[in-house]
Amino acid sequence: MSAQNMYDNPEFFQKYSEFPRAIKGSQGASEWPELQAMLPSDLNSKKVLDLACGEGWFSRWCISRGAREVDACDISVNMLRKAESRTRTIKGFEQGLINFSRTDLEKLVLRTGAYDLVFCGLALHYVKNIENVIREVHASLIPGGLFVFSIEHPFLTAPTRPGFTKTPDGEVDQWPVDSYFDEGERSINWLVQDVKKQHRTLSSYFALLVGAGFEVVQMEEWGATEQKTRKHPDWIEGVCPRFLLMTARKRGEKVKITCRRG
Amino acid sequence: MSAQNMYDNPEFFQKYSEFPRAIKGSQGASEWPELQAMLPSDLNSKKVLDLACGEGWFSRWCISRGAREVDACDISVNMLRKAESRTRTIKGFEQGLINFSRTDLEKLVLRTGAYDLVFCGLALHYVKNIENVIREVHASLIPGGLFVFSIEHPFLTAPTRPGFTKTPDGEVDQWPVDSYFDEGERSINWLVQDVKKQHRTLSSYFALLVGAGFEVVQMEEWGATEQKTRKHPDWIEGVCPRFLLMTARKRGEKVKITCRRG
Repeated sequence: MSAQNMYDNPEFFQKYSEFPRAIKGSQGASEWPELQAMLPSDLNSKKVLDLACGEGWFSRWCISRGAREVDACDISVNMLRKAESRTRTIKGFEQGLINFSRTDLEKLVLRTGAYDLVFCGLALHYVKNIENVIREVHASLIPGGLFVFSIEHPFLTAPTRPGFTKTPDGEVDQWPVDSYFDEGERSINWLVQDVKKQHRTLSSYFALLVGAGFEVVQMEEWGATEQKTRKHPDWIEGVCPRFLLMTARKRGEKVKITCRRG
Repeated sequence: MSAQNMYDNPEFFQKYSEFPRAIKGSQGASEWPELQAMLPSDLNSKKVLDLACGEGWFSRWCISRGAREVDACDISVNMLRKAESRTRTIKGFEQGLINFSRTDLEKLVLRTGAYDLVFCGLALHYVKNIENVIREVHASLIPGGLFVFSIEHPFLTAPTRPGFTKTPDGEVDQWPVDSYFDEGERSINWLVQDVKKQHRTLSSYFALLVGAGFEVVQMEEWGATEQKTRKHPDWIEGVCPRFLLMTARKRGEKVKITCRRG
């Protein structure tokens, strides 16, 4: 089993490259203000892993916040090339602060106890073998380390025939949900035909994290409701959540205290 | 502000009394197996609070599991009468093990550090002043104590015009969601006209719990998918979650360790 590699499909890559977040990075990602508030503001001397790094904007943000080193990986050669090229052009970035590598999330193997923070932006809902990702991320974090990620909200991935509708009187926008408890593959047409997503219930994500030894400390459902700040004025928002943002903390090891009795 | 008291509406009470869960208690509640798995199996010597106790079946279950004492409260005089009457008829139940009292959840005041377990079944989505309930429950628990509750899932409470539909071809059952981010009152016709519910997003519930000092340790979305064991064969299930079941643990106090150095 290998991951779907849409971004090395020339047609997909070309179309994706025109998206605000592909062009402007975090400035083009509507959910970034909420996501940023869930991340440590000071990453001084921290070591970070950026899973599915895309154009590498999150990795560069980490370095701007003081991170000591970022390992950034993606399955797409196109994306890695773009990420490296954008990183090289940024003034003051020393070589070696960000290490790019090609990685298949379906076969993730990570070093144990290597990171203070692991981030994964809008990628886990494409991964089949998510139990392994969560287990590997957990092992790769130091005790107390954070796993922050965003996914498409399970209510967005659930429908077998996704699409907004309106009430018969045309007054109210609706998102019809179906098959919520039928976890597994959904095929959608997004930029190209037949993109595969993996639908899981919200409680499955929660149980996987807790089961691996994480404490879920924050959970935000995102669906912009303010018209002014919209990156996508054409999106119908406020109807149902679009993204789910989560912060999970690796439980700390119990501190062993030895007392010499007087 | 006083709570809505539907169960003292004679028409509502009469109709509700014909429901499987009104007649058979836990045996008539479809979500009970999942909920029971989230509760401590041994309540030996524990003190429990049963908020919105209804016919009191949860309180009696606690006593059968060894609980030392249960405080059970409800706003409905009808329900409290029924609960007391059913409790009296059960063989071996000593008087005083379950204390029934009339309480308005909108104005909840609880004793501090009094309980090991607080339970609230399918009531919080009727309560406006939920911040106070969560704060009072937190204060009423001992450190490490559990708050277990069930609510209607936010996707069930969100729509302003709730109801299942089908895709135009009639093949797929759907639950159209709208207005998810518009928190607040919804008026529905359920047994009687104009029953008021309070819609909140799932992330609001989560943030309220964490903000009050709870750790969310379990979260189950319930929507029966097995045809055989259905209590309600007429319900359309598997389409979207109907209930949300949560277990929150009051964070333990930090243990202060004093060492005499030798």
